Amino acid sequence: MFEQLGLIGCGLMGGSFALALKRAGLVRRVVGYSKSPSTTERARQLGVIDIEAPSALQAVSGSDLVLLAVPVAATETTFKSIRHLLTPEMLVIDVGSTKRDVVDAARRTLKTSVGAFVPCHPITGREVAGVENADADLYKGKQVILTPIERTLTRKIEQATALWKALGCRVFSMSPESHDAAFAAVSHLPHLIAFALMNSLTGQPHGKDYLSMAGPGFRDFSRIAASDPQMWRDVLIANREELAAQTRHFQQALAQLEQLIATGQADALEQLITQASHARATWRVSPGAQ
Amino acid sequence: MFEQLGLIGCGLMGGSFALALKRAGLVRRVVGYSKSPSTTERARQLGVIDIEAPSALQAVSGSDLVLLAVPVAATETTFKSIRHLLTPEMLVIDVGSTKRDVVDAARRTLKTSVGAFVPCHPITGREVAGVENADADLYKGKQVILTPIERTLTRKIEQATALWKALGCRVFSMSPESHDAAFAAVSHLPHLIAFALMNSLTGQPHGKDYLSMAGPGFRDFSRIAASDPQMWRDVLIANREELAAQTRHFQQALAQLEQLIATGQADALEQLITQASHARATWRVSPGAQ
Repeated sequence: MFEQLGLIGCGLMGGSFALALKRAGLVRRVVGYSKSPSTTERARQLGVIDIEAPSALQAVSGSDLVLLAVPVAATETTFKSIRHLLTPEMLVIDVGSTKRDVVDAARRTLKTSVGAFVPCHPITGREVAGVENADADLYKGKQVILTPIERTLTRKIEQATALWKALGCRVFSMSPESHDAAFAAVSHLPHLIAFALMNSLTGQPHGKDYLSMAGPGFRDFSRIAASDPQMWRDVLIANREELAAQTRHFQQALAQLEQLIATGQADALEQLITQASHARATWRVSPGAQ
Repeated sequence: MFEQLGLIGCGLMGGSFALALKRAGLVRRVVGYSKSPSTTERARQLGVIDIEAPSALQAVSGSDLVLLAVPVAATETTFKSIRHLLTPEMLVIDVGSTKRDVVDAARRTLKTSVGAFVPCHPITGREVAGVENADADLYKGKQVILTPIERTLTRKIEQATALWKALGCRVFSMSPESHDAAFAAVSHLPHLIAFALMNSLTGQPHGKDYLSMAGPGFRDFSRIAASDPQMWRDVLIANREELAAQTRHFQQALAQLEQLIATGQADALEQLITQASHARATWRVSPGAQ
């Protein structure tokens, strides 16, 4: 049970966390701050937060739990603006989709209180942003990956683990580097591709007509293209090296298929498609990530 | 009401059509043929067809409705093997995902009976193949695109339209060329990309670990990668020119995003993602294709 959640960033991720925490009876009071005062006000009107804070620092003041739910590029600035009030007694977590940049920012800015920060990445999200879409069930049954560093306090890792579990999550740990490599492959590249496909379509003279004929396969494939632009701008830039490596892998696999198609090598093409189809048909979303 | 459906190809598409037609009370008898006798037998055991035909020609014999539900590359051979029994009194349709190659095959092989053939593409499917997955609801509420040619008889187009409508479909018409350009963009390219992404992942040393962390976004994005390899082998080769054109468009859009990411141009990147996100968020699967 926490006395006060200091919520920095009252969007979909932060707002949903606050709602889940409240519903689970794990917090007495939520003090929220968003860059845009109208968002903070809206969050209060919707009952997502109890008190509006005029600054990130004031959201931290008096909190024993602090959640950063801002686009990852804003992490360092946010840490700088709150570090004076951070103490080793608090638990500080984030929900950023990249972890090396977040961990680097924490190392650079937090100094002695860095041990209280547990970097977290809950594998969840929606293709609609904003506090209006906040949902107490957003985290339920999902996988959360912790990427502690050598200076993270064991006690804080245990606290963060217990917290996420209490929200119905499954918790895993790995290094920030492994995390970023894995998510470049299974999340960041798919998003990049989905954005590129939509732009490719809308950039064509007949793109609108084509889109009007698209069916359920396209619907599912392109769903993630509707994701939050600010969040994804930061993720793609923050993880650009791993993303570039994954894009190269993908381009090679694509070129191999294209070559077989262009030369009409039906058997070899069928073999490669079978490999892909088998891999996907036997894959299951992790029970925690369902 | 048809006396007899001659079903050539008792897979997911053909089997589902037979079940839908039976349920709607639109056919008295279904005579089915599949290249593999065990599939034909299974189709009969499952009640998808009533009578097993030992050849495509014998499935056509006595039928007033003929459905070709074979991989598109098999269209020409199939037409050749049945053309001796085709008459202008029959209605002949197909369900191929490409239409120029199918129409060309019909022109080359069918001669006088070509007018009875109405090329059809129902925008539906599943990521599981085979008669075991046949589903009377597969076509319900879906969009069906007819691509008649100058020699197609108007009466047959009307008959095919009424038939699909009776199965709960919405029917549209366009040229085979427009069809293939559109579906290269919204279906064939997404499938190609999804196959390439799966192969890229499985080809990496840590690919399996990465896959174990993938979440709901990946699940939806990659769903179509599990599609039927034989069917897609033929579709990608049959429509290779339009597909190559769409792949080039996509590569350009991808390169543009990559360039902004590599150089950290956050504002320009956000603008392009916003464009993609907006296009996807405002897109709706056509009521017919839902």
